[in-house]
Amino acid sequence: MSKQIILKSRPKGKPSLENFEIQEIEDPKNERVVLETKYISVDPYLRGRMRNEESYIEPFEVGEAVESMIVSEVTFSDHEEFKKGDYVIGMLDWKKQQSHSGENLRKVDPSIAPLSAYLGVLGLTGLTAYLALDKIGNLNKGETLLVSGAAGAVGSVVGQIGKIKGCRVIGIAGSDEKIQHIQEKFGFDAGINYKTTAHMEKAIEEACPDGVDVYFDNVGGKILDAALQNINKAARIINCGAISIYNKTETPTGPRPEGILIKKSALMQGFLIRDHMKEYEKAISELAGWLKSGKLKYDETIIEGFEKTPQAFIDIFDGKNLGKMLVKV
Amino acid sequence: MSKQIILKSRPKGKPSLENFEIQEIEDPKNERVVLETKYISVDPYLRGRMRNEESYIEPFEVGEAVESMIVSEVTFSDHEEFKKGDYVIGMLDWKKQQSHSGENLRKVDPSIAPLSAYLGVLGLTGLTAYLALDKIGNLNKGETLLVSGAAGAVGSVVGQIGKIKGCRVIGIAGSDEKIQHIQEKFGFDAGINYKTTAHMEKAIEEACPDGVDVYFDNVGGKILDAALQNINKAARIINCGAISIYNKTETPTGPRPEGILIKKSALMQGFLIRDHMKEYEKAISELAGWLKSGKLKYDETIIEGFEKTPQAFIDIFDGKNLGKMLVKV
Repeated sequence: MSKQIILKSRPKGKPSLENFEIQEIEDPKNERVVLETKYISVDPYLRGRMRNEESYIEPFEVGEAVESMIVSEVTFSDHEEFKKGDYVIGMLDWKKQQSHSGENLRKVDPSIAPLSAYLGVLGLTGLTAYLALDKIGNLNKGETLLVSGAAGAVGSVVGQIGKIKGCRVIGIAGSDEKIQHIQEKFGFDAGINYKTTAHMEKAIEEACPDGVDVYFDNVGGKILDAALQNINKAARIINCGAISIYNKTETPTGPRPEGILIKKSALMQGFLIRDHMKEYEKAISELAGWLKSGKLKYDETIIEGFEKTPQAFIDIFDGKNLGKMLVKV
Repeated sequence: MSKQIILKSRPKGKPSLENFEIQEIEDPKNERVVLETKYISVDPYLRGRMRNEESYIEPFEVGEAVESMIVSEVTFSDHEEFKKGDYVIGMLDWKKQQSHSGENLRKVDPSIAPLSAYLGVLGLTGLTAYLALDKIGNLNKGETLLVSGAAGAVGSVVGQIGKIKGCRVIGIAGSDEKIQHIQEKFGFDAGINYKTTAHMEKAIEEACPDGVDVYFDNVGGKILDAALQNINKAARIINCGAISIYNKTETPTGPRPEGILIKKSALMQGFLIRDHMKEYEKAISELAGWLKSGKLKYDETIIEGFEKTPQAFIDIFDGKNLGKMLVKV
């Protein structure tokens, strides 16, 4: 027997364990490609797919297995591209074993980087950091880059790319340990602990005396408001994530940004990594180069045990992860 | 004796006549260039300069003459570029006569277009429509362009350029007469009277069955909110003006846009015409060509009498103008 994790009910507000159910299922038949799950990626954006509403990706169905990016080992294959013992990555079901058509699976090489890295720094989070900065950020040497969620999987890569490009990089995160960590490990110039800072607008002003040229936003909400108050002329705001509002049940309100955007000729642009699939190869190659040369470091928080997947997902919203949150099966 | 209009006090909320004072002043001396005012442009953005706060342009000083774009006749000149009888345009004081260094004055030719057109369709409003669409809008044939303030000086040119580029163009304005007018005179495909529409979001959805690809926003606020609910993937929102919030004394709030921007990979960008001065010549030349061939039409509301300038400015906020609001002196 194998196991799967289904969406039992749609979360209202913050997800809880009751929204998920672990079920026993039959082992998959030996046909096409059979995969054994090794690492499961849990990501904030999955919360959006748990809503029953139109978005850039179809919602999860209640009663069916949740899916996310997963690294698996091929245990059987009659597909010419894959053989037993290969490791592959793809958007797969939260199942211990599953059969698959082989479409949209990509092989990964454990001799270049650990398997888990393909779900993080060389996966969608690293690609998001790299391509969002490339497409929207347009960083120039000497500019100030502000990053929220700075200790997270995307934010930590954003900050390091900022340093590689010659920028002053300021990170926002939720604990003094995280702030110390992003400075010591990732080379951020300074950091702001938003949980102990009463006036974010003023704290950003002090940390960014030349103003903010690029704000890479992973959180939205009040931290975005405070950043907007400190932007320079022709600033670029990358709306990459909005974890602070994903669990809200009503549309959150805040100060209107249009006045500031006009005053500063500034830009706010939403970024979805799925729009840029054609550029993954080039980006992964440059990221892997930086990784090899030691310019790029990463954190991961690995939870052991397939059954812990729902809790690992829930824990992201409490910031319990350092870097990429993964489940090792 | 000549006359000037000064800012007597900073408006709180909507400007009123009490914020201005008409004063008698000495005639200017015959030195450098002496100008006699012919047409004064009154514009919503002047409200911003009446606040005592840092912006993209320095605030007006209380007790000093207000300034805006003005077309004048040269009545005296010892400047080699200008001679008596020339017409010039520039950022000038609200004075019936004034002397000037000649810097940043540009000659205008009444044989190409009426003098007043240089303050509208061939002036900053026409340039704003043209260059904001060019820099941010990136219109493609067959796309849907939504424009607020559609009967205004900027909006009416935006809509006509949209039609020239092969788009479906929908205008939002504040009266049935304006809606009829933008369809009959400017070729808009449809219009929405926001004053008689209870549900703007639904009205936009009905008028734009294929969604909104470009939203040219002259008003901000709730109409922007409603437009955002109808944008397509990769939509461009041009924040050109925010007349609905200029008179607010506290920062107005509204639904946060970051979630939609991410979901739609959409862009919101502020536009200031002053950032693009190097491209005025090229843009005016194309606008003048369209004007000559009859592809581009315009409205102007001309108030007669120098002393009426403050009232003309105030009337913009009540939408009393059709097209560019001007004062003929």
